[in-house]
Amino acid sequence: MNKKTTIYDIAKKLDTTAATVSRALNNNPKISASTRKLVLETAAQMNYKQNKLALALQSGKSGNIGVIVPRIDSNFFASVIRGIEDELQPEGYHVIICQTHENEKREIENINTLLNAQVDGILMSASNVSKENNSIIKRVIEKNVPLIFFDRKKNIDGVSSVTINDFEGGYLATKHLIGEGCTKIAHLTGDQSLEIYENRNNGYKKALQDSGIEYNEDYIIQTKSSVEAGRQAVEKLLKLKNPPNAIFSSSDFAALGAIQELKEQGIRIPEDFCVFGFGNEPFTKFMELSISSVDQSPMEMGKMAAQVFLEQVNSTEKFKIEKKVVLNPELHIRKSSLRHAL
Amino acid sequence: MNKKTTIYDIAKKLDTTAATVSRALNNNPKISASTRKLVLETAAQMNYKQNKLALALQSGKSGNIGVIVPRIDSNFFASVIRGIEDELQPEGYHVIICQTHENEKREIENINTLLNAQVDGILMSASNVSKENNSIIKRVIEKNVPLIFFDRKKNIDGVSSVTINDFEGGYLATKHLIGEGCTKIAHLTGDQSLEIYENRNNGYKKALQDSGIEYNEDYIIQTKSSVEAGRQAVEKLLKLKNPPNAIFSSSDFAALGAIQELKEQGIRIPEDFCVFGFGNEPFTKFMELSISSVDQSPMEMGKMAAQVFLEQVNSTEKFKIEKKVVLNPELHIRKSSLRHAL
Repeated sequence: MNKKTTIYDIAKKLDTTAATVSRALNNNPKISASTRKLVLETAAQMNYKQNKLALALQSGKSGNIGVIVPRIDSNFFASVIRGIEDELQPEGYHVIICQTHENEKREIENINTLLNAQVDGILMSASNVSKENNSIIKRVIEKNVPLIFFDRKKNIDGVSSVTINDFEGGYLATKHLIGEGCTKIAHLTGDQSLEIYENRNNGYKKALQDSGIEYNEDYIIQTKSSVEAGRQAVEKLLKLKNPPNAIFSSSDFAALGAIQELKEQGIRIPEDFCVFGFGNEPFTKFMELSISSVDQSPMEMGKMAAQVFLEQVNSTEKFKIEKKVVLNPELHIRKSSLRHAL
Repeated sequence: MNKKTTIYDIAKKLDTTAATVSRALNNNPKISASTRKLVLETAAQMNYKQNKLALALQSGKSGNIGVIVPRIDSNFFASVIRGIEDELQPEGYHVIICQTHENEKREIENINTLLNAQVDGILMSASNVSKENNSIIKRVIEKNVPLIFFDRKKNIDGVSSVTINDFEGGYLATKHLIGEGCTKIAHLTGDQSLEIYENRNNGYKKALQDSGIEYNEDYIIQTKSSVEAGRQAVEKLLKLKNPPNAIFSSSDFAALGAIQELKEQGIRIPEDFCVFGFGNEPFTKFMELSISSVDQSPMEMGKMAAQVFLEQVNSTEKFKIEKKVVLNPELHIRKSSLRHAL
């Protein structure tokens, strides 16, 4: 009685082929709407794969999920997307990706593009938090398209998010540098209107405060997340009357640039200067002078964001579920900041 | 008389706001279909931005372009996509991305997903060349959705492609290694059913032949494009009775793994062993022991693929244009293979 229903059972009942049933279930446009409806209904009667079906039966659902990221060419975002795909594909969803290049106008265009493509949900990492694109976000919510933020969130009522504890990441990295004997620690920060950078900055400040080290405005440099920006930041810092002897960078790319510039100026790492990055990009491990970094569990973040989405679409509750999931960061301590044995 | 028409002119004529005109032109779903039609027709009469308009006026066009790649987390594919975006966005197109993870089933799903999302064209790098998904490709062609291959192409009549000269890349890299005094050169190749790997392999063979070096089957290892695969290949090669003293790898990731393994086994690079990669991923330059690699002009490749697409959709010819664009590879010679001064 409990034998699992297969597509062959459904095909037999409908006197058609398993291939046709499979195509109908997989939303293949080769199959006519009427055949598809018949297959779905029969499959439902026979208790075939309830989850995927529940989805397909809701008319107007495309099975497509849109993911918006600032950039695809960082291991962090690529891994988050991998996590989302791994979680959603077994449920019958297909993931389509757009990137904004940190450009607000493109973010708005991307949301429109995905809405036009009839996506069933949008999972996004915001490129900025300016108010200007709040109207488009409002439209997503009004259209009842589930929206989940990951990593870079906007604080909007009723919208769920999955982030890591960036404050804790900044705190622990800075504490580690202090423990290695660094007393003059600079911080390369990002766009302060983004919570992630504000929180990393606050964690850094708190660590200094807890260790009785004075906060020095001159040591805070706002940089883009790029190798070139990291180089320029070091140039600036080394020109100070009282230059720092360590850097906590909110970006691995900027940390790499910083290291390149320090080396070119003949400064020894970690003996004279320690560097700590953020993101745990694969190259931080590959380098001969491997770079210490904060890991953000991107696969986990993607999986969690996908789960929050699934909960939301599969919920039978009348009210909206708002979830704020916060993952823990993890330090990876490597040569660029390690003076003492672990 | 030649004054360029602006959205303000159109707004004035229609007694509406510039914002409304802009939204209508940008396909914003806030605007009703009738308003949009009116704006588009008026704009056409007033000769506003002919290109974008021609597109929008063709009913049923979404303005969305689908790009399919094996993976987004390589600088190569990310850069090709960047090139495509840079070329298509000014023309009013929006790019949505799908990845296959080299999985044939996902490739078919991705094509279906994009067709369901009503894309106006598909630019793709094939994950495999098995015949099994030729039927879906055929369907794309039948639906008159322009299809352009880049990097990894299938040979299908009437379908354009943009590739680099992989044969030449393999030939030049191997010739360089021979010039550095390497006589026993192994080759890490990829899936031989993909033309790119077959061509790199053939270039390698021809270079050996032209230099009177015998081809040795034992020196050919098929690997995935990953660090771990490169490590395993070196383990295998070093166990040979007559191990090689150089590697030409068809992947930078495998080249990196090879270098890691060689170093761990106490082999000096480039003194005892030279390594040459393919792809010119940014990390090849970042490493202290920088890795020689073949550059594939990915931005250029993306731009060319986009231009071929635009030519195709904007063509007034009745027949199909089939273009095969082949870009030249460029060697970047770095420490991992450089024994003599350049």
